[in-house]
Amino acid sequence: MASSISFTALPGVPEVRPGDDLAALVAAALDRAGLAPARRDVFVVAQKIVSKCQGRFVDLAEVTPSARARRLAAEVDKDPRLVEVILAESEEIVRSKPGVIVAAHRLGYVMANAGIDRSNLGPGGERVLLLPRDPDAAARELRDALESRYGTSLGVIVSDSFGRAWRNGVVGVALGVAGLPSLVDARGERDRDGRALEVTQIGFADAVAAGASLVMGEAGEGTPVVVARGLAWDAPEGDARALIRPREEDMFR
Amino acid sequence: MASSISFTALPGVPEVRPGDDLAALVAAALDRAGLAPARRDVFVVAQKIVSKCQGRFVDLAEVTPSARARRLAAEVDKDPRLVEVILAESEEIVRSKPGVIVAAHRLGYVMANAGIDRSNLGPGGERVLLLPRDPDAAARELRDALESRYGTSLGVIVSDSFGRAWRNGVVGVALGVAGLPSLVDARGERDRDGRALEVTQIGFADAVAAGASLVMGEAGEGTPVVVARGLAWDAPEGDARALIRPREEDMFR
Repeated sequence: MASSISFTALPGVPEVRPGDDLAALVAAALDRAGLAPARRDVFVVAQKIVSKCQGRFVDLAEVTPSARARRLAAEVDKDPRLVEVILAESEEIVRSKPGVIVAAHRLGYVMANAGIDRSNLGPGGERVLLLPRDPDAAARELRDALESRYGTSLGVIVSDSFGRAWRNGVVGVALGVAGLPSLVDARGERDRDGRALEVTQIGFADAVAAGASLVMGEAGEGTPVVVARGLAWDAPEGDARALIRPREEDMFR
Repeated sequence: MASSISFTALPGVPEVRPGDDLAALVAAALDRAGLAPARRDVFVVAQKIVSKCQGRFVDLAEVTPSARARRLAAEVDKDPRLVEVILAESEEIVRSKPGVIVAAHRLGYVMANAGIDRSNLGPGGERVLLLPRDPDAAARELRDALESRYGTSLGVIVSDSFGRAWRNGVVGVALGVAGLPSLVDARGERDRDGRALEVTQIGFADAVAAGASLVMGEAGEGTPVVVARGLAWDAPEGDARALIRPREEDMFR
Protein backbone atom coordinates (compact mmCIF):
# COMPACT_ATOMS: atom_id res chain seq x y z
CA MET A 1 0.00 0.00 0.00
CA ALA A 2 1.36 3.39 -1.01
CA SER A 3 1.85 5.71 1.96
CA SER A 4 1.73 8.91 -0.10
CA ILE A 5 0.46 9.67 -3.59
CA SER A 6 0.18 12.87 -5.58
CA PHE A 7 -1.96 14.14 -8.42
CA THR A 8 -0.41 16.89 -10.53
CA ALA A 9 -2.17 18.68 -13.36
CA LEU A 10 0.04 18.89 -16.42
CA PRO A 11 0.06 22.48 -17.66
CA GLY A 12 0.33 23.44 -21.29
CA VAL A 13 -1.60 20.71 -23.07
CA PRO A 14 -2.95 22.62 -26.09
CA GLU A 15 -6.43 22.44 -27.61
CA VAL A 16 -6.54 19.03 -29.27
CA ARG A 17 -7.56 18.66 -32.92
CA PRO A 18 -8.65 15.59 -34.88
CA GLY A 19 -5.67 13.47 -35.86
CA ASP A 20 -3.30 14.96 -33.28
CA ASP A 21 -0.65 12.68 -31.76
CA LEU A 22 -1.74 12.70 -28.13
CA ALA A 23 1.46 11.09 -26.85
CA ALA A 24 3.51 13.80 -28.57
CA LEU A 25 1.33 16.55 -27.07
CA VAL A 26 1.70 15.05 -23.60
CA ALA A 27 5.45 14.62 -24.04
CA ALA A 28 5.84 18.23 -25.19
CA ALA A 29 3.87 19.46 -22.19
CA LEU A 30 6.01 17.32 -19.85
CA ASP A 31 9.16 18.77 -21.43
CA ARG A 32 7.95 22.35 -21.07
CA ALA A 33 7.01 21.68 -17.44
CA GLY A 34 10.40 20.09 -16.79
CA LEU A 35 8.73 16.86 -15.69
CA ALA A 36 9.98 13.35 -16.42
CA PRO A 37 7.74 10.33 -15.88
CA ALA A 38 8.72 7.88 -13.17
CA ARG A 39 7.97 4.16 -13.08
CA ARG A 40 4.27 3.47 -12.52
CA ASP A 41 3.21 7.06 -13.01
CA VAL A 42 -0.38 6.96 -14.19
CA PHE A 43 -1.55 9.53 -16.74
CA VAL A 44 -5.20 10.36 -16.29
CA VAL A 45 -6.51 11.85 -19.52
CA ALA A 46 -9.96 13.44 -19.91
CA GLN A 47 -12.06 11.49 -22.43
CA LYS A 48 -12.90 14.74 -24.15
CA ILE A 49 -9.40 15.22 -25.55
CA VAL A 50 -9.22 11.58 -26.65
CA SER A 51 -12.53 12.03 -28.45
CA LYS A 52 -11.37 15.26 -30.08
CA CYS A 53 -8.19 13.51 -31.18
CA GLN A 54 -10.35 10.81 -32.78
CA GLY A 55 -12.53 13.45 -34.44
CA ARG A 56 -15.67 12.15 -32.70
CA PHE A 57 -17.71 15.26 -33.56
CA VAL A 58 -21.25 15.16 -34.84
CA ASP A 59 -22.81 18.24 -36.42
CA LEU A 60 -26.38 18.47 -35.18
CA ALA A 61 -27.28 20.46 -38.30
CA GLU A 62 -26.85 17.21 -40.22
CA VAL A 63 -28.92 15.07 -37.88
CA THR A 64 -32.55 14.23 -38.67
CA PRO A 65 -34.35 13.06 -35.56
CA SER A 66 -36.47 9.91 -35.78
CA ALA A 67 -40.01 9.80 -34.46
CA ARG A 68 -38.69 7.98 -31.38
CA ALA A 69 -36.11 10.72 -30.78
CA ARG A 70 -38.79 13.42 -31.17
CA ARG A 71 -41.05 11.72 -28.64
CA LEU A 72 -38.26 11.26 -26.10
CA ALA A 73 -36.99 14.82 -26.71
CA ALA A 74 -40.44 16.20 -25.94
CA GLU A 75 -40.56 14.16 -22.73
CA VAL A 76 -37.13 15.24 -21.48
CA ASP A 77 -37.16 18.76 -22.97
CA LYS A 78 -33.96 18.36 -24.99
CA ASP A 79 -33.01 19.05 -28.62
CA PRO A 80 -34.50 16.19 -30.72
CA ARG A 81 -31.31 16.05 -32.80
CA LEU A 82 -29.21 15.59 -29.65
CA VAL A 83 -31.61 12.88 -28.49
CA GLU A 84 -31.24 11.18 -31.88
CA VAL A 85 -27.48 11.04 -31.35
CA ILE A 86 -27.94 9.76 -27.78
CA LEU A 87 -30.20 6.99 -29.05
CA ALA A 88 -27.71 6.06 -31.76
CA GLU A 89 -24.96 5.74 -29.15
CA SER A 90 -27.07 3.71 -26.72
CA GLU A 91 -28.20 0.14 -26.30
CA GLU A 92 -31.01 1.11 -23.99
CA ILE A 93 -32.57 4.14 -22.33
CA VAL A 94 -32.49 3.17 -18.65
CA ARG A 95 -34.46 6.11 -17.23
CA SER A 96 -35.72 9.45 -18.49
CA LYS A 97 -37.49 12.44 -17.04
CA PRO A 98 -37.47 16.17 -17.84
CA GLY A 99 -33.85 17.24 -18.17
CA VAL A 100 -32.45 13.73 -17.65
CA ILE A 101 -31.63 10.77 -19.88
CA VAL A 102 -29.79 7.86 -18.27
CA ALA A 103 -28.62 5.56 -21.04
CA ALA A 104 -26.67 2.34 -21.37
CA HIS A 105 -23.98 3.26 -23.85
CA ARG A 106 -23.11 0.71 -26.53
CA LEU A 107 -19.82 0.18 -24.68
CA GLY A 108 -21.70 -0.76 -21.50
CA TYR A 109 -21.42 2.37 -19.37
CA VAL A 110 -24.67 3.44 -17.71
CA MET A 111 -24.44 7.22 -17.75
CA ALA A 112 -26.21 10.50 -18.47
CA ASN A 113 -26.82 11.32 -22.14
CA ALA A 114 -24.72 8.36 -23.36
CA GLY A 115 -21.69 10.53 -22.59
CA ILE A 116 -22.44 13.06 -25.27
CA ASP A 117 -20.94 16.43 -24.56
CA ARG A 118 -22.00 19.69 -26.08
CA SER A 119 -20.12 22.10 -23.88
CA ASN A 120 -17.07 24.05 -24.97
CA LEU A 121 -16.82 22.70 -28.47
CA GLY A 122 -16.07 26.06 -30.00
CA PRO A 123 -18.27 28.66 -31.67
CA GLY A 124 -21.39 27.62 -33.48
CA GLY A 125 -22.64 25.34 -30.76
CA GLU A 126 -24.18 22.87 -33.18
CA ARG A 127 -21.46 20.28 -32.70
CA VAL A 128 -21.50 17.54 -30.10
CA LEU A 129 -18.76 15.16 -29.10
CA LEU A 130 -19.23 11.40 -28.71
CA LEU A 131 -17.23 9.21 -26.34
CA PRO A 132 -13.96 7.84 -27.73
CA ARG A 133 -14.07 4.70 -29.81
CA ASP A 134 -12.87 1.86 -27.55
CA PRO A 135 -11.40 3.84 -24.61
CA ASP A 136 -9.43 0.79 -23.40
CA ALA A 137 -7.68 0.62 -26.78
CA ALA A 138 -7.06 4.38 -26.69
CA ALA A 139 -5.53 4.00 -23.21
CA ARG A 140 -3.30 1.15 -24.40
CA GLU A 141 -2.18 3.11 -27.44
CA LEU A 142 -1.21 6.14 -25.37
CA ARG A 143 0.43 3.96 -22.71
CA ASP A 144 2.49 2.12 -25.35
CA ALA A 145 3.61 5.37 -26.97
CA LEU A 146 4.60 6.95 -23.63
CA GLU A 147 6.34 3.80 -22.40
CA SER A 148 8.45 3.48 -25.51
CA ARG A 149 9.31 7.18 -25.35
CA TYR A 150 10.32 7.13 -21.69
CA GLY A 151 11.51 3.55 -21.32
CA THR A 152 9.65 2.89 -18.10
CA SER A 153 6.46 1.19 -17.02
CA LEU A 154 3.53 3.65 -17.10
CA GLY A 155 -0.23 3.59 -16.79
CA VAL A 156 -3.00 5.48 -18.57
CA ILE A 157 -6.61 6.10 -17.60
CA VAL A 158 -9.11 7.71 -19.97
CA SER A 159 -11.46 9.39 -17.52
CA ASP A 160 -14.94 10.85 -17.47
CA SER A 161 -17.34 12.12 -14.80
CA PHE A 162 -20.47 10.14 -14.00
CA GLY A 163 -23.46 10.84 -11.83
CA ARG A 164 -24.55 8.25 -9.30
CA ALA A 165 -27.95 6.69 -8.71
CA TRP A 166 -28.34 7.75 -5.08
CA ARG A 167 -25.82 10.53 -4.61
CA ASN A 168 -25.66 14.10 -5.85
CA GLY A 169 -22.68 15.30 -7.84
CA VAL A 170 -20.55 13.69 -10.49
CA VAL A 171 -17.26 11.91 -9.77
CA GLY A 172 -14.40 10.82 -11.98
CA VAL A 173 -14.48 7.28 -13.37
CA ALA A 174 -12.25 5.28 -15.69
CA LEU A 175 -13.58 4.61 -19.20
CA GLY A 176 -10.29 3.18 -20.41
CA VAL A 177 -7.39 1.65 -18.48
CA ALA A 178 -3.96 0.38 -19.48
CA GLY A 179 -0.94 -0.51 -17.38
CA LEU A 180 -2.60 -0.68 -13.96
CA PRO A 181 -5.31 -2.74 -12.27
CA SER A 182 -8.87 -1.61 -12.82
CA LEU A 183 -10.22 -3.74 -9.95
CA VAL A 184 -8.29 -4.96 -6.92
CA ASP A 185 -9.46 -7.90 -4.83
CA ALA A 186 -9.50 -7.32 -1.10
CA ARG A 187 -10.42 -9.41 1.88
CA GLY A 188 -14.19 -9.61 2.13
CA GLU A 189 -16.82 -10.17 4.72
CA ARG A 190 -16.33 -13.28 6.84
CA ASP A 191 -18.86 -15.76 8.05
CA ARG A 192 -19.43 -16.93 11.61
CA ASP A 193 -16.46 -19.30 11.41
CA GLY A 194 -14.07 -16.68 10.16
CA ARG A 195 -14.03 -17.91 6.58
CA ALA A 196 -14.06 -15.36 3.81
CA LEU A 197 -17.55 -15.39 2.35
CA GLU A 198 -16.78 -13.30 -0.66
CA VAL A 199 -14.02 -11.22 -2.11
CA THR A 200 -14.60 -7.49 -2.02
CA GLN A 201 -13.39 -5.72 -5.10
CA ILE A 202 -12.01 -2.21 -4.99
CA GLY A 203 -12.66 0.09 -7.94
CA PHE A 204 -8.99 1.04 -8.08
CA ALA A 205 -8.88 2.82 -11.44
CA ASP A 206 -12.13 4.64 -10.65
CA ALA A 207 -10.60 5.91 -7.40
CA VAL A 208 -7.54 7.14 -9.33
CA ALA A 209 -9.82 8.91 -11.82
CA ALA A 210 -11.79 10.47 -8.96
CA GLY A 211 -8.64 11.73 -7.25
CA ALA A 212 -7.33 13.13 -10.53
CA SER A 213 -10.58 14.99 -11.12
CA LEU A 214 -9.75 17.19 -8.12
CA VAL A 215 -6.96 18.87 -10.11
CA MET A 216 -8.37 18.41 -13.61
CA GLY A 217 -10.98 21.12 -13.35
CA GLU A 218 -14.37 21.36 -14.93
CA ALA A 219 -14.86 18.59 -17.46
CA GLY A 220 -11.17 18.59 -18.21
CA GLU A 221 -11.05 22.21 -19.42
CA GLY A 222 -7.61 23.71 -19.14
CA THR A 223 -5.75 20.78 -17.62
CA PRO A 224 -7.08 17.61 -19.21
CA VAL A 225 -4.03 15.52 -18.25
CA VAL A 226 -3.10 14.68 -14.66
CA VAL A 227 -0.12 12.65 -13.48
CA ALA A 228 -0.77 10.34 -10.52
CA ARG A 229 2.46 9.39 -8.78
CA GLY A 230 3.20 6.98 -5.95
CA LEU A 231 0.42 4.47 -6.59
CA ALA A 232 1.31 0.95 -5.49
CA TRP A 233 -0.36 -2.27 -6.52
CA ASP A 234 0.18 -6.02 -6.52
CA ALA A 235 -2.95 -6.90 -8.47
CA PRO A 236 -2.78 -7.76 -12.16
CA GLU A 237 -3.39 -5.08 -14.75
CA GLY A 238 -6.92 -4.92 -16.11
CA ASP A 239 -9.04 -2.96 -18.54
CA ALA A 240 -11.89 -0.60 -17.77
CA ARG A 241 -14.41 -3.01 -19.23
CA ALA A 242 -13.95 -5.02 -16.01
CA LEU A 243 -15.41 -2.06 -14.11
CA ILE A 244 -18.76 -2.41 -15.86
CA ARG A 245 -21.22 -4.58 -13.97
CA PRO A 246 -22.55 -7.25 -16.32
CA ARG A 247 -26.15 -6.71 -17.42
CA GLU A 248 -27.20 -10.02 -15.84
CA GLU A 249 -25.96 -8.87 -12.41
CA ASP A 250 -27.59 -5.45 -12.69
CA MET A 251 -30.32 -5.00 -10.08
CA PHE A 252 -31.19 -1.45 -11.14
CA ARG A 253 -32.43 -1.52 -14.71
CA MET B 1 -8.04 24.87 -9.07
CA ALA B 2 -5.20 23.15 -7.28
CA SER B 3 -2.38 22.10 -9.59
CA SER B 4 -1.03 19.41 -7.29
CA ILE B 5 -2.50 17.56 -4.34
CA SER B 6 -1.24 14.76 -2.16
CA PHE B 7 -2.76 12.04 -0.02
CA THR B 8 -0.59 10.75 2.81
CA ALA B 9 -1.51 7.90 5.11
CA LEU B 10 -0.88 8.83 8.73
CA PRO B 11 1.11 6.04 10.37
CA GLY B 12 0.75 5.02 13.98
CA VAL B 13 -2.93 5.54 14.68
CA PRO B 14 -3.57 2.85 17.31
CA GLU B 15 -6.53 0.50 17.57
CA VAL B 16 -9.40 2.74 18.64
CA ARG B 17 -11.52 1.86 21.68
CA PRO B 18 -14.93 3.13 22.76
CA GLY B 19 -14.63 6.54 24.38
CA ASP B 20 -11.22 7.35 22.95
CA ASP B 21 -10.44 10.98 22.09
CA LEU B 22 -9.98 10.71 18.35
CA ALA B 23 -8.44 14.19 17.98
CA ALA B 24 -5.84 13.31 20.61
CA LEU B 25 -5.01 10.03 18.85
CA VAL B 26 -4.62 11.83 15.52
CA ALA B 27 -2.50 14.58 17.08
CA ALA B 28 -0.23 12.02 18.76
CA ALA B 29 0.22 10.19 15.44
CA LEU B 30 1.02 13.49 13.70
CA ASP B 31 3.58 14.30 16.38
CA ARG B 32 5.25 10.90 16.12
CA ALA B 33 5.36 11.25 12.32
CA GLY B 34 6.82 14.74 12.60
CA LEU B 35 3.90 16.17 10.63
CA ALA B 36 2.20 19.49 11.26
CA PRO B 37 -1.14 20.30 9.65
CA ALA B 38 -1.23 23.11 7.09
CA ARG B 39 -4.17 25.37 6.30
CA ARG B 40 -6.93 23.48 4.49
CA ASP B 41 -5.43 20.09 5.06
CA VAL B 42 -8.32 17.64 4.98
CA PHE B 43 -8.23 14.64 7.32
CA VAL B 44 -10.02 11.67 5.81
CA VAL B 45 -10.96 9.28 8.61
CA ALA B 46 -12.37 5.78 8.04
CA GLN B 47 -15.89 5.52 9.47
CA LYS B 48 -14.86 2.33 11.23
CA ILE B 49 -12.65 4.13 13.74
CA VAL B 50 -15.28 6.79 14.37
CA SER B 51 -17.79 4.02 15.02
CA LYS B 52 -15.40 2.20 17.35
CA CYS B 53 -14.78 5.46 19.21
CA GLN B 54 -18.54 5.81 19.63
CA GLY B 55 -18.81 2.21 20.81
CA ARG B 56 -21.22 1.29 18.02
CA PHE B 57 -20.83 -2.44 18.53
CA VAL B 58 -23.71 -4.88 18.57
CA ASP B 59 -23.22 -8.40 19.93
CA LEU B 60 -25.08 -10.78 17.64
CA ALA B 61 -25.39 -13.24 20.52
CA GLU B 62 -27.85 -10.77 22.05
CA VAL B 63 -29.93 -10.26 18.90
CA THR B 64 -33.19 -12.14 18.36
CA PRO B 65 -34.15 -12.08 14.70
CA SER B 66 -37.73 -11.19 13.85
CA ALA B 67 -39.79 -13.26 11.42
CA ARG B 68 -39.08 -10.66 8.73
CA ALA B 69 -35.34 -10.89 9.37
CA ARG B 70 -35.48 -14.70 9.21
CA ARG B 71 -37.32 -14.62 5.89
CA LEU B 72 -34.90 -12.10 4.34
CA ALA B 73 -31.90 -13.97 5.78
CA ALA B 74 -33.06 -17.17 4.09
CA GLU B 75 -33.46 -15.33 0.81
CA VAL B 76 -30.02 -13.70 0.90
CA ASP B 77 -28.21 -16.51 2.73
CA LYS B 78 -26.96 -14.36 5.61
CA ASP B 79 -27.02 -14.73 9.39
CA PRO B 80 -30.61 -13.87 10.51
CA ARG B 81 -29.21 -11.93 13.49
CA LEU B 82 -27.09 -9.79 11.15
CA VAL B 83 -30.13 -9.22 8.95
CA GLU B 84 -32.11 -8.17 12.02
CA VAL B 85 -29.47 -5.51 12.74
CA ILE B 86 -29.46 -4.40 9.08
CA LEU B 87 -33.26 -4.01 9.18
CA ALA B 88 -33.06 -2.04 12.41
CA GLU B 89 -30.55 0.36 10.82
CA SER B 90 -32.56 0.80 7.60
CA GLU B 91 -35.53 2.72 6.40
CA GLU B 92 -36.06 0.44 3.44
CA ILE B 93 -34.57 -2.61 1.77
CA VAL B 94 -33.97 -1.36 -1.78
CA ARG B 95 -32.90 -4.65 -3.39
CA SER B 96 -31.93 -8.11 -2.20
CA LYS B 97 -30.70 -11.30 -3.75
CA PRO B 98 -28.46 -14.13 -2.52
CA GLY B 99 -25.40 -12.56 -0.91
CA VAL B 100 -26.62 -8.99 -1.37
CA ILE B 101 -28.75 -6.55 0.62
CA VAL B 102 -28.91 -2.99 -0.65
CA ALA B 103 -30.55 -0.87 2.01
CA ALA B 104 -31.45 2.76 2.55
CA HIS B 105 -29.83 3.52 5.88
CA ARG B 106 -31.79 5.62 8.34
CA LEU B 107 -29.34 8.46 7.61
CA GLY B 108 -30.20 8.32 3.89
CA TYR B 109 -27.26 6.47 2.40
CA VAL B 110 -28.20 3.74 -0.08
CA MET B 111 -25.55 1.09 0.51
CA ALA B 112 -24.80 -2.58 1.03
CA ASN B 113 -25.87 -4.09 4.37
CA ALA B 114 -26.79 -0.66 5.81
CA GLY B 115 -23.07 -0.15 6.35
CA ILE B 116 -22.78 -2.87 8.96
CA ASP B 117 -19.31 -4.29 9.21
CA ARG B 118 -18.36 -7.58 10.73
CA SER B 119 -14.78 -7.82 9.56
CA ASN B 120 -11.80 -7.39 11.82
CA LEU B 121 -13.66 -6.70 15.01
CA GLY B 122 -11.43 -8.87 17.10
CA PRO B 123 -11.73 -12.46 18.27
CA GLY B 124 -15.10 -14.03 18.82
CA GLY B 125 -16.59 -12.79 15.59
CA GLU B 126 -20.04 -12.29 17.06
CA ARG B 127 -19.75 -8.51 17.15
CA VAL B 128 -20.74 -6.19 14.35
CA LEU B 129 -20.15 -2.48 14.00
CA LEU B 130 -22.83 0.03 13.00
CA LEU B 131 -22.15 3.28 11.15
CA PRO B 132 -21.30 6.25 13.36
CA ARG B 133 -24.12 8.25 14.87
CA ASP B 134 -24.46 11.43 12.77
CA PRO B 135 -21.20 11.32 10.75
CA ASP B 136 -21.50 15.04 9.88
CA ALA B 137 -21.53 15.89 13.59
CA ALA B 138 -18.59 13.53 14.17
CA ALA B 139 -16.68 15.27 11.37
CA ARG B 140 -17.44 18.69 12.85
CA GLU B 141 -16.39 17.60 16.31
CA LEU B 142 -13.04 16.26 15.08
CA ARG B 143 -12.51 19.30 12.85
CA ASP B 144 -13.19 21.69 15.75
CA ALA B 145 -10.81 19.80 18.05
CA LEU B 146 -8.01 19.72 15.44
CA GLU B 147 -8.52 23.37 14.45
CA SER B 148 -8.31 24.58 18.02
CA ARG B 149 -5.23 22.44 18.62
CA TYR B 150 -3.38 23.63 15.52
CA GLY B 151 -4.83 27.12 15.08
CA THR B 152 -5.49 26.78 11.37
CA SER B 153 -8.42 26.05 9.11
CA LEU B 154 -8.80 22.30 8.57
CA GLY B 155 -11.29 19.89 7.03
CA VAL B 156 -12.49 16.45 8.05
CA ILE B 157 -14.21 13.72 6.04
CA VAL B 158 -15.60 10.57 7.65
CA SER B 159 -15.28 8.09 4.79
CA ASP B 160 -16.65 4.72 3.80
CA SER B 161 -16.55 2.54 0.69
CA PHE B 162 -19.73 2.04 -1.34
CA GLY B 163 -20.58 -0.19 -4.25
CA ARG B 164 -22.21 1.34 -7.32
CA ALA B 165 -25.36 0.33 -9.18
CA TRP B 166 -23.72 -0.24 -12.55
CA ARG B 167 -20.04 -0.60 -11.81
CA ASN B 168 -17.98 -3.27 -10.15
CA GLY B 169 -15.81 -2.44 -7.17
CA VAL B 170 -16.29 -0.19 -4.21
CA VAL B 171 -15.02 3.40 -4.04
CA GLY B 172 -14.54 5.82 -1.17
CA VAL B 173 -17.38 8.19 -0.34
CA ALA B 174 -17.94 10.85 2.29
CA LEU B 175 -20.41 10.00 5.07
CA GLY B 176 -19.53 13.09 7.09
CA VAL B 177 -17.96 16.39 6.03
CA ALA B 178 -16.79 19.46 7.93
CA GLY B 179 -14.64 22.39 6.83
CA LEU B 180 -14.76 21.85 3.06
CA PRO B 181 -17.42 21.81 0.33
CA SER B 182 -19.27 18.54 -0.16
CA LEU B 183 -20.67 19.60 -3.56
CA VAL B 184 -19.16 22.18 -5.94
CA ASP B 185 -21.20 23.85 -8.66
CA ALA B 186 -19.63 23.86 -12.10
CA ARG B 187 -20.64 25.20 -15.44
CA GLY B 188 -23.25 22.91 -16.93
CA GLU B 189 -24.57 21.93 -20.28
CA ARG B 190 -25.59 24.82 -22.51
CA ASP B 191 -28.54 25.12 -24.78
CA ARG B 192 -28.51 26.09 -28.47
CA ASP B 193 -28.13 29.75 -27.59
CA GLY B 194 -25.20 29.24 -25.28
CA ARG B 195 -27.16 29.71 -22.09
CA ALA B 196 -26.44 27.48 -19.16
CA LEU B 197 -29.28 24.99 -18.97
CA GLU B 198 -28.34 23.56 -15.65
CA VAL B 199 -25.60 23.64 -13.10
CA THR B 200 -23.50 20.50 -12.92
CA GLN B 201 -22.52 19.60 -9.41
CA ILE B 202 -19.24 17.92 -8.60
CA GLY B 203 -19.13 15.41 -5.75
CA PHE B 204 -16.08 17.11 -4.31
CA ALA B 205 -15.91 15.44 -0.88
CA ASP B 206 -16.64 12.05 -2.45
CA ALA B 207 -13.70 12.53 -4.83
CA VAL B 208 -11.46 13.39 -1.88
CA ALA B 209 -12.65 10.27 -0.06
CA ALA B 210 -12.01 8.17 -3.18
CA GLY B 211 -8.49 9.54 -3.61
CA ALA B 212 -7.74 8.97 0.07
CA SER B 213 -8.91 5.36 -0.19
CA LEU B 214 -5.90 4.67 -2.44
CA VAL B 215 -3.55 5.02 0.53
CA MET B 216 -5.94 3.96 3.30
CA GLY B 217 -5.87 0.27 2.59
CA GLU B 218 -8.54 -2.34 2.99
CA ALA B 219 -11.48 -0.90 4.86
CA GLY B 220 -9.22 1.43 6.75
CA GLU B 221 -7.15 -1.31 8.35
CA GLY B 222 -3.74 -0.15 9.44
CA THR B 223 -3.90 3.43 8.24
CA PRO B 224 -7.42 4.68 8.86
CA VAL B 225 -6.43 8.38 8.69
CA VAL B 226 -5.21 10.08 5.52
CA VAL B 227 -4.15 13.70 5.13
CA ALA B 228 -5.16 15.36 1.85
CA ARG B 229 -3.02 18.42 1.15
CA GLY B 230 -3.20 21.03 -1.59
CA LEU B 231 -6.93 20.99 -2.20
CA ALA B 232 -8.31 24.31 -3.39
CA TRP B 233 -11.89 25.47 -3.37
CA ASP B 234 -14.00 28.59 -3.69
CA ALA B 235 -17.33 26.91 -2.99
CA PRO B 236 -18.98 27.20 0.41
CA GLU B 237 -18.48 24.47 2.98
CA GLY B 238 -21.21 21.86 3.14
CA ASP B 239 -22.14 18.70 4.95
CA ALA B 240 -22.25 15.17 3.61
CA ARG B 241 -26.03 15.11 3.86
CA ALA B 242 -26.00 17.31 0.73
CA LEU B 243 -24.42 14.39 -1.15
CA ILE B 244 -27.48 12.21 -0.65
CA ARG B 245 -29.95 12.42 -3.51
CA PRO B 246 -33.36 13.22 -2.07
CA ARG B 247 -35.83 10.32 -2.14
CA GLU B 248 -38.20 12.28 -4.41
CA GLU B 249 -35.49 12.69 -7.06
CA ASP B 250 -34.41 9.04 -6.89
CA MET B 251 -35.10 7.22 -10.17
CA PHE B 252 -33.70 3.89 -9.00
CA ARG B 253 -35.75 2.66 -6.05
